[in-house]
Amino acid sequence: MPTSAPGPSGTDLAEAAIAGDRRALARLLTAVENGSLVAEAAMRRLYPAAGRAHLVGITGAPGSGKSTLVAALIVEARRAGRSVGVIAVDPSSPVTGGAILGDRVRMQAHAGDRDVFIRSMASRGHAGGLAATSVAAATVMDATGFELVLMETVGTGQSEVDVAAAADTTVVLEAPEMGDEVQAIKAGLLEVADIVVVNKGDRPGAQRSASTLRTMLVASAPRAPLDGRPWPKRPEILVTTATTAEGVAELLAAIDRHRETATAEARDRRRIARAEAQLWAILGQRVRLALAAPANAATTGALIEAVARHQVDPYAAADRLLTALATTLAAGSADAVRR
Amino acid sequence: MPTSAPGPSGTDLAEAAIAGDRRALARLLTAVENGSLVAEAAMRRLYPAAGRAHLVGITGAPGSGKSTLVAALIVEARRAGRSVGVIAVDPSSPVTGGAILGDRVRMQAHAGDRDVFIRSMASRGHAGGLAATSVAAATVMDATGFELVLMETVGTGQSEVDVAAAADTTVVLEAPEMGDEVQAIKAGLLEVADIVVVNKGDRPGAQRSASTLRTMLVASAPRAPLDGRPWPKRPEILVTTATTAEGVAELLAAIDRHRETATAEARDRRRIARAEAQLWAILGQRVRLALAAPANAATTGALIEAVARHQVDPYAAADRLLTALATTLAAGSADAVRR
Repeated sequence: MPTSAPGPSGTDLAEAAIAGDRRALARLLTAVENGSLVAEAAMRRLYPAAGRAHLVGITGAPGSGKSTLVAALIVEARRAGRSVGVIAVDPSSPVTGGAILGDRVRMQAHAGDRDVFIRSMASRGHAGGLAATSVAAATVMDATGFELVLMETVGTGQSEVDVAAAADTTVVLEAPEMGDEVQAIKAGLLEVADIVVVNKGDRPGAQRSASTLRTMLVASAPRAPLDGRPWPKRPEILVTTATTAEGVAELLAAIDRHRETATAEARDRRRIARAEAQLWAILGQRVRLALAAPANAATTGALIEAVARHQVDPYAAADRLLTALATTLAAGSADAVRR
Repeated sequence: MPTSAPGPSGTDLAEAAIAGDRRALARLLTAVENGSLVAEAAMRRLYPAAGRAHLVGITGAPGSGKSTLVAALIVEARRAGRSVGVIAVDPSSPVTGGAILGDRVRMQAHAGDRDVFIRSMASRGHAGGLAATSVAAATVMDATGFELVLMETVGTGQSEVDVAAAADTTVVLEAPEMGDEVQAIKAGLLEVADIVVVNKGDRPGAQRSASTLRTMLVASAPRAPLDGRPWPKRPEILVTTATTAEGVAELLAAIDRHRETATAEARDRRRIARAEAQLWAILGQRVRLALAAPANAATTGALIEAVARHQVDPYAAADRLLTALATTLAAGSADAVRR
């Protein structure tokens, strides 16, 4: 499926993007989304140049006003002269389209500003997983000089929450007066929050929601997150009204403060999580490529069929595939596992 | 992390579960969720016994009434004397809890019925991925004799939609009068639908929603799904009111009809997708175990650190890890990649 399209090489595109060519940047992001060979060559060049941007994940239930808040954050960051990249993970599919036009149009306000770059990514169809693809896209923006990279996702799916949680700072949005099921989703989201924002602050109940959240977080602390470590710090809780930019300057300040005051350990944990997500995704792709290579394709296909027919259990099949993989790797051809 | 807890072996648990022991079944499902050694042994025994159940994915945006509809489907299926297993993927986390109590309580109505078995699964924290874990859990229910296995997920995340789409028949729920962002999510969901249900049929606008959907689907056909194959069949559209069971018998009939009329090719495609999801998840786990084994742990850790510090790009690191993996596999010890 991934073919090297005729055109500039990944390295050339990377050089052009670093030099400020926005068309090259756009092409690179497409290559990253498609997992093409161009992306691999480009990433090898870009990766050492990355690591300086502040990656901020922004997530929340549908209707909490994420895109409006992102638009307001862009304005605020630009006022301070900072360049901003945005990766908006779109819940709708590439097939039926359906980007959330209103929000995207709002963001078009920055269309003439070359220090703002907004990219919508489909949330489905990433072979290496959504988190790995999003982190790679953020790395491209990081390496090409964007100081602030916002990763916006709908916080109602595991992969989507993982994207936001892979950032240096994770902002979780709430809106006052949400239904029961949304509340339950929220409970899961709060765990990954460094900053909780009650948006739609002009609605009745916003301040009350913020108070309730503060009480909740005090009552439940200290909690152990999934990895068993102690909660490093209770999340800050802010109220914003994204539509009028009320509280947005304070939010940006809180985002900066979170990064500045993060312990070295907390910072490393996020970076290592991102490194692992990318490494495992790439390894997984290479293992699959090796098993789909001519020498193994027949065995692999037959085993998948046998598992599908319940003639072989998936563990036994995996063991046989590992044997095939060992032979391929032992043949010494590292190329067998590359495209 | 996964340790073999003291207690019956996976094979013993599998035998007991097949013989109808519901406590053994519950323990097996926990083992599957934890990815323990017990689960592997049990799955080796259970897998050949599975493949008969009708797996039905039920998904939809928050608030569309999935759990109520699942409860109504259970009643309808039991009326026909069929046994029903339910895997409810809960959007809330294992840490903060927050199961959607109302719905779960409604399902407790079947607590005394041994031909109904309901299991809530957290949507986060599955090493092998949510889809692989859910398919494994469905396989356990299938092998232990449940005829109908319902997999219920919130259809707003990639992983969650993948779970529902891995079933033999995928039902997508809509509720009339939903917001913009939810509509966009819906567009992505419709692609995986074999049956579309407009629930809350007693609300104004339900019939109009159904008509709009029919027009949409006609207007947009023929569409090419992500894998490039032609759309096998336009989804059937039904209206239900889950709270009063209106239309639920018709829905169950449509679910059965979908399976009966599915082409062999369509059926195989779903089975192969399930087999692949499980195989790649198991392979991925084994590759990671091999790289975490004493012989490789130091190299792996150092490479992850180097990638995290942007000193090595993730592709170069992946290549070095593959070399380490080759050595481990060549050492001939298949045990190195097992727990």
